[in-house]
This record gives sequence, C-alpha cells and structure tokens, in this order.
Amino acid sequence: MAIYDLSGKNKYYTLYTRIRDDITAGRYATGEKLPAKRALAADLGVSVVTVQLAYEQLLAEGYIFSRERSGYYVEKIDVCPHSGGAPEPRRGEQTSPNSQYVLDFVKGSTPAELFPFSVWAKLMRRVILDCGGQLMERVPCAGDGVLKEEISRYLYRSRGITAPPDRIVIGAGAEYLYGVIVQLLGRNRLFAVENPGYGNISSTYMLNGARVAPITVTDAGISPGELKSSGADVVHISPAHQFPTGVITPASTRSQIISWAEEAGGYAVEDDYDSEFRLSGKPLHSLYSLCPGRVIYMNTFSKSLAPSMRLGYMVLPQELMGRFMELFSSVASVVPLFEQRALAEMLRGGYFERHISRLKSHYAGIRRLTLETLKSLGASCEIFDTGSGPHLLCKFPQAPSDEAIKSGARELGVNVRCLSDYLLAPAAGTERTAVINYSGVTAEQIYALRKKLK
Amino acid sequence: MAIYDLSGKNKYYTLYTRIRDDITAGRYATGEKLPAKRALAADLGVSVVTVQLAYEQLLAEGYIFSRERSGYYVEKIDVCPHSGGAPEPRRGEQTSPNSQYVLDFVKGSTPAELFPFSVWAKLMRRVILDCGGQLMERVPCAGDGVLKEEISRYLYRSRGITAPPDRIVIGAGAEYLYGVIVQLLGRNRLFAVENPGYGNISSTYMLNGARVAPITVTDAGISPGELKSSGADVVHISPAHQFPTGVITPASTRSQIISWAEEAGGYAVEDDYDSEFRLSGKPLHSLYSLCPGRVIYMNTFSKSLAPSMRLGYMVLPQELMGRFMELFSSVASVVPLFEQRALAEMLRGGYFERHISRLKSHYAGIRRLTLETLKSLGASCEIFDTGSGPHLLCKFPQAPSDEAIKSGARELGVNVRCLSDYLLAPAAGTERTAVINYSGVTAEQIYALRKKLK
Repeated sequence: MAIYDLSGKNKYYTLYTRIRDDITAGRYATGEKLPAKRALAADLGVSVVTVQLAYEQLLAEGYIFSRERSGYYVEKIDVCPHSGGAPEPRRGEQTSPNSQYVLDFVKGSTPAELFPFSVWAKLMRRVILDCGGQLMERVPCAGDGVLKEEISRYLYRSRGITAPPDRIVIGAGAEYLYGVIVQLLGRNRLFAVENPGYGNISSTYMLNGARVAPITVTDAGISPGELKSSGADVVHISPAHQFPTGVITPASTRSQIISWAEEAGGYAVEDDYDSEFRLSGKPLHSLYSLCPGRVIYMNTFSKSLAPSMRLGYMVLPQELMGRFMELFSSVASVVPLFEQRALAEMLRGGYFERHISRLKSHYAGIRRLTLETLKSLGASCEIFDTGSGPHLLCKFPQAPSDEAIKSGARELGVNVRCLSDYLLAPAAGTERTAVINYSGVTAEQIYALRKKLK
Repeated sequence: MAIYDLSGKNKYYTLYTRIRDDITAGRYATGEKLPAKRALAADLGVSVVTVQLAYEQLLAEGYIFSRERSGYYVEKIDVCPHSGGAPEPRRGEQTSPNSQYVLDFVKGSTPAELFPFSVWAKLMRRVILDCGGQLMERVPCAGDGVLKEEISRYLYRSRGITAPPDRIVIGAGAEYLYGVIVQLLGRNRLFAVENPGYGNISSTYMLNGARVAPITVTDAGISPGELKSSGADVVHISPAHQFPTGVITPASTRSQIISWAEEAGGYAVEDDYDSEFRLSGKPLHSLYSLCPGRVIYMNTFSKSLAPSMRLGYMVLPQELMGRFMELFSSVASVVPLFEQRALAEMLRGGYFERHISRLKSHYAGIRRLTLETLKSLGASCEIFDTGSGPHLLCKFPQAPSDEAIKSGARELGVNVRCLSDYLLAPAAGTERTAVINYSGVTAEQIYALRKKLK
C-alpha cells in the first residue's frame, strides 16, 4: 500500500489525486483491489469520510469500480498523457493566518489599512437610509440593475470591454460563479484547467459534478495542442496573468484558443482575477473582446477590495444569458442588495478607481523592495517577473529540492510555496521555483528580513 | 400536439412538467416521437433554448431517449402513482411588483417601514469601522464564528434547539443552502418534497442535478406511507407551518418521519422558514430536537429581516458537518463578513427579537382585518387558519373554478393564487382554494378593498 502525505487542507482531494495518479501511472494493476476504507483511513490517520469521498470521486470518474460487499477495484485505464507520477498536492491560495512567519508570500490579502473603510461606511449608510423600500424586494437573479450599469461602464473605461448590462451576472465571489457556469453548461462537460493553476478552480468544478482535465501552461500560455486533444468542452484560463506562473498569453495562442472554441462549439472562461494590477502599462486586451460569443468574461472584487466582500461578476455570451434567465429567473440574487448598491456608488463616484491607483503604487513599492531583496541573493536565484499582478517566480537552480527551498525560507521566518504545490498533474520545468506573492506583505516586514539576511 | 400554456416565469420547467405528466398519464405512447425542438418552440411562442432545456431534463430523468439525427422518443414508463393529469404550473412565491393591484396576497415581502433601517445602518457602520483588519481575511467556509455563536444562543432561547456553533453553516439564502445539501448528500439521491409546496425547493434541487419526488401533504402533514414507497433518500419539509397549506405536522407524523429516516439511513431537511411568526402561543417543538443525527435544521433571515439580505443558516448532523468541512474547507463563505457581523450585533443586542415582536403585532393586526374581511363574504367561503405564519387558506366551494376565483379577485384589484398553482403533481382536495399570504399588505389596502366590497 502506498504511503501518502495528506497534511494540509482538502485531504480527500489530495488522496483522490494521489490514487488517480498511481492508477494512471500503472502503479496499480488493472483489477487490483484497493485497500478497505477503514484500513486505509487508519493507516493514513484520516477519517473514513475522507477515504470514502476520494473513492467516490474515483468511482464517478471511472478510475475504479465497485463490487457489492467486496470492495473497490482498479478499472482498465489507458495511461493518460498528462499523468505519470505522483504530483505534490495542489492547494488553494489561502492559508490560515500564521503568526510564526515574519513574511508571508503565500497569503494574498491586501493590508487592511489600504481598504477605504470610511468611504465604505459612508456609502453603506447612505444606501441603507436612502434606498428604503427597495431593500425589501428580492434582487433579480442576475443582480441589481444599478450595479450592472456601473460595472458595464467600468469595464469599458478600464478594459475596453463592451458588455451590455443585461449580459452581466453578479454572484457571491469566484467559486460561486464557477458553480453557476457548470449549471449553465451542464455537468456532462469536460472542463480544461491550467496546470499548474489555482486549485480551487478545479476542485470547485468537480464539487459541482463536472470533470476536469489539466492542460500544461507553457511560456506561451496554455498549450492549444493539448487542449484540442483533451476533448474538453470548456477551457478556464487567465490570459492576462496566469496564477502561479505569471505567464501572459500571447496573441497567437489567444487566436488558437478562439479557433478551438469556434470549431469545437466550446467556451473559454476568461478569469481576469488581477488584471487591475498590471504595474507597467495598460491592462492587456481581453480574450472576450476577440470573440464575445465564445468567451465568458469573469472578475471579482476580492483582490481589489476585500476577500470578505464576496462579490464577483461575469459577462455571458447572448446564448448563455438566455439559458441563465431560463434556469434562474425564479431565484433571487445571492448577493445582498446593500453591498451591490454601495459598490455601485463606489464605482460611480470614482472611489473605486482611486482605491485601485493607491493599491497599485503600494504594490509597485513592495515589488521594488522584493526584487531588490531577491537580487541581493546573487546568482543563486533567477527571477521571472512580467510586471503584471502582485506575484512573481524565483528559481533556485542549485537548491537540492522544492522542500529545501521551503524549509530554508521557513528558517528565516518566511512562508513560501513552490510551483509544484500548484500542480494538478506532473509538468516538466516546474522544479526549484518559488512563487512569491507579495500582495500581503509590508515594507517593514521586508526590511526585517533583510537584516536577517546580512 | 398538446397545447401548453407557458405564461409566467420558469417556462422550461413548466414545459418539462407538462410533458412529463402527459407521459406518465399515458397521453404519449411508448416510443412516440416528440415534436422537433424548433417546431415546438415556434408553436408555443418560446425560444428553442426553453424546449431544449425541457427535453434535456426529461432525458436526464429517463422519460425520453434520443436517437442521433432523428429526435426524441418516449420511454416505456410505468404510470406513477402521483401523476395522472396535467397540473397547473408550479410557481415561486415571488412576483414582480405590479402596480395594477390594490392588494397583493401573493408577494411575501415585509412592508419596508417595518425594517429597522437606522439600527442596521448604525450596526453596519460600527462593524466596518471597528473590525478593521478582520474584514480583509477570507471568512471560513461555514461562516463567521461570532455570528454562529449568536445564532446558537438565539436558537436555544427562541426554539429550544441545542446547536453547537461548530455544527452551524451560514449561507447566502435558502436556495444556496439547498444546493449545498445536494453537494453534501450526492446527486444520485432522490429528494422527496411537499406537494403542494414552494416551487423553488424542487426546481433548485433539480438545477443542482438531483431528482425529486412529490409527496402529498395531508391534514396530518406529508404522507409517511407515500414517503416510504417513494424510495426517497431525503425529505424536505416544513413541519412547523407548511407552505401553502398551513398544515402543522402532528407528533405522530413527526415520529413516523424520524423512524423512516433512521430505518432508511435518510435525512429530513426541516425548513423552518417562518416559525418566528406563530401568532398564538410559543413556536412548536422542532423536528431537529427529536433526532439531531438525522435532521438538517434550516432557516433564513429573508422573512424576518429583508429578502434582499440573503442570509440563511443550517444546523448539520455531526457526520454531515465532517463531510462539509472535507468538501468546502478551502472555499470562503459566500456571505460578506460585514453582513454577518452586523447581524451578530443585532442578535446580541436584542434588536432582532424586538424587531420580530414588532412584526408579530403588525401581522396580528393584518390577520384580524383579513379574517374580518373574508368572514364578511359569508357562507361563500371557508377559512383554514392555524395561527402560524402570515398566510392562510380560503375555500370557495361554489366557485366554478380556480381560474374564476383568481379572475374574480383580479376584477377587485386583488392578486391571489390558488393551491393548485403550487402543485408539483395532481393532488385531491386542492380545488377552489385561495392562498392568502398577507405578509405584504397594509391595513389601508384592506380598508380600500372593503369599500369596494360594499
């Protein structure tokens, strides 16, 4: 029986990926019996529920089959081109706050003092007292009309995107919207996701009953060849700035993705999660603008305002908007009207863009300090930074392993993850590379680290 | 080809139920070809998407099968005991505000002037300015600990329910929580729902990929015999006050439901949506307290505060809470922390219970006026009122039809629905009965109606 390390969150998912990869890599024989649930749970020190969920997922995806009163057995599986070894567990971006670190390059939350609390309190008060009776009505399923109007205008001036308000859907954050996309497109669809990538994307699609296929992210974005041969119906990408690689998808790949979508009748979900934070030059042209009939554009206010706000939106192609209204018209929007109206006021009054520009100068300063500090390490590290978004990559070619990078950082009081922590399936060239997300660190913290490094 | 009336919202669902009922009633022969999608859409004056969604639902539930490049055909179906005719479409409780009515007995929203706007604005401002940095953290998947603590205390003092905070899950309203329940229990489960009932319950379960079975509501609550023979894994009920019948489930039925759950290894979802509004005596004992291992207790603040707030919660049995943490621990709560903390303050400071008691005296007055007005109609109507919640039934035995009741009301400027509008499958004894939901009407409006009646 294989020994799996299931530390960290999402144990069942980790176990599922480990067993799946063992099966696809041929480490289990066809017809081999899997360990009994209780025995495996005891061996791994996890609950039986964890093992059961992992087995259910494997069963649902056809990796194993069950025989009544006997157990679970491995199906005959052709070895998949994306799999071949046991990858590190993929993890979400968030961790619980951990005071043991001087510097946290994993957690991505904006420093609290940058949030415009007094503006927000003022707008919220005004909305509650002024809008009166409207607050007692259910908000239409696609969201409040006033906010959709303001988002439409904002998208035009900030991203050059023409999105009519009646094609916008407001939702309670990114994961909520991923679930709506599954409901819109159907659970029988195969969702292609970026590898390495943000783990909550694939786990949320799976939680909603869809299947996912990891596609390698190269220097030129997601591989169109792999996408084509995967048989996927939908591809979820962040062409402006991929997490965690930082890759900006070039025009040639973009047009190949659009061609794929048009030929296959598929859709691309453009997750534009941090495009506001391009620190040099204007934000990049959107994929949506290339082909509004085949692209679902999506963004949230979690990065730009506060993770606890839970407000995101998507722009749907006309056909999908019709489907959305059919399915959801009798259901109320899940976002409180108070929040929607206060945010509309924030966009209308220019407060939001002023806030973004303050955040950008803050990040520019932190980025400069971070780069200086990394460069002071000399030849031992190579920096990959595209000037987009608040994260960059740092390769340590001489480090013995990814684990050594993380434990070395830990000794300095620094929390960091490696590219391999974000792998859904093995991918070449991802070793010895730290992901430096500096959106949650302060200048003081970096100065404190510098002292230690001297 | 049958002629279906698809006015109103949720056209695809209505079309789906009509065709399904025609199939189960034998009005289509086994193997008969269904009309082509485009032709049916044109005939009914609806979009092709509507027909496609209805066909997909029928296909998913095995009522029809498809032959490539040929079309859809009716499967061999045993006639189902619950079906036998073409019921009225079921509808959600909400309608769009309609100024043509003097009096609206359908829409269920609290009059705006009863919402404690100034208290809410004050608490919200305090939360935004005081909680500072915490607002920049992601809220744990099950919700904010401070609010869960307050809900736990509130449940104990108002309902006698012992629910530890770590067994409570906060969500963005009832429909959102229904979706979570499907994710927790699995899409392969059969959900029994009340018939007649609140349509959004069954449509939301279906939207999330589960199957539903309508079970007849009798004078003694949902029929335990039908529940048993349905093969359901889960039953969704409102034992304190069923909508729309107003039936209070007696202890004998409750214990039969619990026995069923224990024997079948199933769960009961206790939807306690309006238990705060029992106008005479204390709220009834909860089903949850009878068997906390087999009952999911659920309530929202939509009825008691504002429909636009989107805040509900459920108490999970220990086993399901473990599963919830496994599945969702890497995802943030979908409800903004601002709202959660302001509500916690409202509960802690006693503001919420003062608001409920004001609402109750308001409803008591409206109920008295409504009853007086109905009684003035004399022998032509029979009133069924259990003193729970802000709705009651009124039977007009001499009315020629349900349609005649509604059009007669319409002529007086009154919007009303009949029990048959809430049927998911035909049920005996539901004819000529109006559902009077008086939660959104004012005394002035009732006086205006009285003048017209004279």
